[in-house]
Amino acid sequence: MKPVRALISVSDKRGIVDFAKELNELGIEIVSTGGTARLLKESGIPVREISDLTGFPEIMEGRVKTLHPKVHGGILADRSKDEHLRAMRELEIEPIDMVVVNLYPFKETVKKGADLDEIIENIDIGGPTMVRAAAKNFKHVAIVTDPEDYERIINELKETGEISLKTRFYLARKAFNLTAHYDAVISDYLFSIDEEGKKVGCRELRNPLTITFEKVQDLRYGENPHQRGAFYREVFVTEPCVTRARKLHGEKELSFNNIYDLDGALNLALEFDPVKEGISCAIIKHANPCGVALGKTPEEAYERALKVDPLSAFGGIIAFNSRVTPEAARLIVERFYECIIAPDYDEEALEILKTKKNLRVLTTDGLNGLKNRGEDSPFDYRRVVGGLLVQDRDLMTLDPEKLKVVTDREPTEKEWEDLIFAFKVVKWVKSNSVVYAKDKVAVGIGVGQTSRVDSARCAAEKAKLMGIDLSGSVLASEAFFPFRDSIDEAAKVGVTAVIQPGGSIRDKEVIQAANEHGMAMVFAGIRHFRH
Amino acid sequence: MKPVRALISVSDKRGIVDFAKELNELGIEIVSTGGTARLLKESGIPVREISDLTGFPEIMEGRVKTLHPKVHGGILADRSKDEHLRAMRELEIEPIDMVVVNLYPFKETVKKGADLDEIIENIDIGGPTMVRAAAKNFKHVAIVTDPEDYERIINELKETGEISLKTRFYLARKAFNLTAHYDAVISDYLFSIDEEGKKVGCRELRNPLTITFEKVQDLRYGENPHQRGAFYREVFVTEPCVTRARKLHGEKELSFNNIYDLDGALNLALEFDPVKEGISCAIIKHANPCGVALGKTPEEAYERALKVDPLSAFGGIIAFNSRVTPEAARLIVERFYECIIAPDYDEEALEILKTKKNLRVLTTDGLNGLKNRGEDSPFDYRRVVGGLLVQDRDLMTLDPEKLKVVTDREPTEKEWEDLIFAFKVVKWVKSNSVVYAKDKVAVGIGVGQTSRVDSARCAAEKAKLMGIDLSGSVLASEAFFPFRDSIDEAAKVGVTAVIQPGGSIRDKEVIQAANEHGMAMVFAGIRHFRH
Repeated sequence: MKPVRALISVSDKRGIVDFAKELNELGIEIVSTGGTARLLKESGIPVREISDLTGFPEIMEGRVKTLHPKVHGGILADRSKDEHLRAMRELEIEPIDMVVVNLYPFKETVKKGADLDEIIENIDIGGPTMVRAAAKNFKHVAIVTDPEDYERIINELKETGEISLKTRFYLARKAFNLTAHYDAVISDYLFSIDEEGKKVGCRELRNPLTITFEKVQDLRYGENPHQRGAFYREVFVTEPCVTRARKLHGEKELSFNNIYDLDGALNLALEFDPVKEGISCAIIKHANPCGVALGKTPEEAYERALKVDPLSAFGGIIAFNSRVTPEAARLIVERFYECIIAPDYDEEALEILKTKKNLRVLTTDGLNGLKNRGEDSPFDYRRVVGGLLVQDRDLMTLDPEKLKVVTDREPTEKEWEDLIFAFKVVKWVKSNSVVYAKDKVAVGIGVGQTSRVDSARCAAEKAKLMGIDLSGSVLASEAFFPFRDSIDEAAKVGVTAVIQPGGSIRDKEVIQAANEHGMAMVFAGIRHFRH
Repeated sequence: MKPVRALISVSDKRGIVDFAKELNELGIEIVSTGGTARLLKESGIPVREISDLTGFPEIMEGRVKTLHPKVHGGILADRSKDEHLRAMRELEIEPIDMVVVNLYPFKETVKKGADLDEIIENIDIGGPTMVRAAAKNFKHVAIVTDPEDYERIINELKETGEISLKTRFYLARKAFNLTAHYDAVISDYLFSIDEEGKKVGCRELRNPLTITFEKVQDLRYGENPHQRGAFYREVFVTEPCVTRARKLHGEKELSFNNIYDLDGALNLALEFDPVKEGISCAIIKHANPCGVALGKTPEEAYERALKVDPLSAFGGIIAFNSRVTPEAARLIVERFYECIIAPDYDEEALEILKTKKNLRVLTTDGLNGLKNRGEDSPFDYRRVVGGLLVQDRDLMTLDPEKLKVVTDREPTEKEWEDLIFAFKVVKWVKSNSVVYAKDKVAVGIGVGQTSRVDSARCAAEKAKLMGIDLSGSVLASEAFFPFRDSIDEAAKVGVTAVIQPGGSIRDKEVIQAANEHGMAMVFAGIRHFRH
């Protein structure tokens, strides 16, 4: 297909002058609109106004300019059908073989904090219509939506005199991919506000559900080398998270598994308020924590987290909820880690960390607050074959009002602190999970067993192997205990207090077990399954 | 806002006659196109043709009929702006206050197996343009895209004489949600074919990425009671999967966790070819298998799978790769399970299963093949805060050509069978994972520890507690052994052969350990991390 006429109407004017010049030199007539037409004319390129083609003025501040049968007949005509060609002749519709369009900057307008009227004005109507019409008719028309493609098009035209079907199909795919993204962003935005433009607190689980992402980067591979992988971000997210984190050091690219573990590590570290609760350090391996502790300083938190399982920590991911100090950095570089993520780094700390060539150092740029958590990224997705499970993110934290002591004995003040710490940690461990804690260190982490008592037992066994004394520790379980067996196991290793959601039909038996062992038990009234 | 004129153009004509009648009786002028206009006229409703409003004929077999400034000026005019009102007066543009449009049946056309030309013809251009224009201008226009809303609109008009801003915003959101879905489906389809319409084997990890789903059902809650949840399906999926499974029995609704575990169970069961490898049974609890076995009959496979950990199996999910027999059903109803999924059920088996009121029985309707696995649902998604990790699904199976014996001793024939069985099972266990297998039964399943040797140790401990003798078993690991420790642990419990990907810098040391213990070791050359 050799184009005779191109319609150009772009918001993003990068490269458009050079592209139009080349098209003009190739003998292609250029029809254009509004600001694009002005720019091209000023650059000395012969341009025909769209109103000349349509015989109709541009009206309503540009809301209506290309929505005309002479434009869309020219784009949509199936050149292989006599009836379409006859209509063109009879109605004096001139063919448009190439459409160069990109869209009003809707997302940029939302991002800059514009008001609702300005945002609405930036919902492009004419642009997507031309893009979709030209893409539909890819057998006869080339739709160019990306300035990155200008060079390819010119080269192909110069080399072959045509734009091939293969290229036109590539462009058409890209075009529908763009309009899908554009409308998904608009839809997502509209579901985040009410009719006055105010943010709504809780978004609908709508039907259909269309979710859209921008690519951050291709990854070397997915979870395994035989799977391709890529990392995508949401359009409007503002909270501190791995997706928005900035890499300060480390040549090696992040892997699929790194990113997944960074997410888990940061979520866990940010579960604690650095001022009210203390500085947290979480060490993650294979999507589960192998060390978590609070401390007065990052170095203290790190040392306490590490000592529980230094073997697993090898090659792990570390996260803090606060600025990293030189003292912490010095300890960290003594060992091999894949990545570290924190809100901030002391300048000296960063220099020390940089001595490790392959350690990736990420920052959330000072953001460590929990204030807007979930506001712009409210959903959690779980893939199943052929579908998706969607749920609210688990943003619930312990409600002190709801905690209920169910045993004869109340927890001591120290036990209370450890119970709350342990329950916050167990939220981020894959179910079934239990966490033993002592002095705000997770001294035993029971992960992902198919039976709760096995998780309790595995973690206790591990602690024993590591030479950790569990006596005087507390135990947290992310879901209720179905039987008393885990309590009996816990008593054997010296656990003195337990926290769990409660709600089993055998609660009575479980509470009785705790009473028999002189333990304090708290019902949290909330469950934290995480599979 | 009281509408004076409605433009009606619908593909899905459900309820449109009654709706138009009511609008007409309310004094609203109806403008319509093509088939819709004919239907309304035949039903005795006064209708004005769109060509009368535009002064331009419908052309190109309906490709161009509403793409006209008199239509879009009428929809898009901002009634609060003098300039827009002046343009309407001067150009004789009549206001359109209500747009009733639904779109050409693109997905239905693809699903019925139409050819590329017919599919392309069903990419609607005029429809989405009107929907988008009217939705953009929701401050002045009502956009009705769903027949389910007709009644609501009529009621509101009758009760208040108007359509409120709140309703118009609700309709606008829904409209963009529809166009986003529509274009995401088109885009997804175009990325699944080449320019000739032939299916491509491997889809691009495109940028941006927009994925879209239809809601199957709202769920009682998400993973936990404080999280809302819903279950969604992809549009074109054809392979046997939980999303397409049909419930044959069980009043209780599936829960979020049920669906996730059904997916895991079915994936694992379908890993085995029922004819070549045997009938498989998988029992899942908390997203991990607690029992997996092959057998000559479903009842044999089930009994073998169950005996490894009947405690964990309580309340679990069962999957088979074959038709369920009455004998298997009789054994199953002796215990409490949440759900069962299988390609098919013997009539008598189904009657037996139905005696359990709360057991949900699902079928994949005879589909148990692996033939088109991944073809229409090629990607795996992993959520991180603010973004998404996307990868190819792990559809790799063992390649006999690539298996490499690295020890002095070759596996015996029986060991070979168990090694391959164990490696297929370990693929579906959360990392770090190991599986001990004996006689095609997973006799020890090590789940999700942060250190590999812990997984090996936990599973062995558990087997001991269950009175299972691991001597003569084989061991599979989903990723390489970083140290010889796991091999030494395995030797202690009597493991005679090992399969693992290989690739550690300490492979030599690991192989040596195997040789010292007289074990056979196979490198699979493929890793199966699953977090």
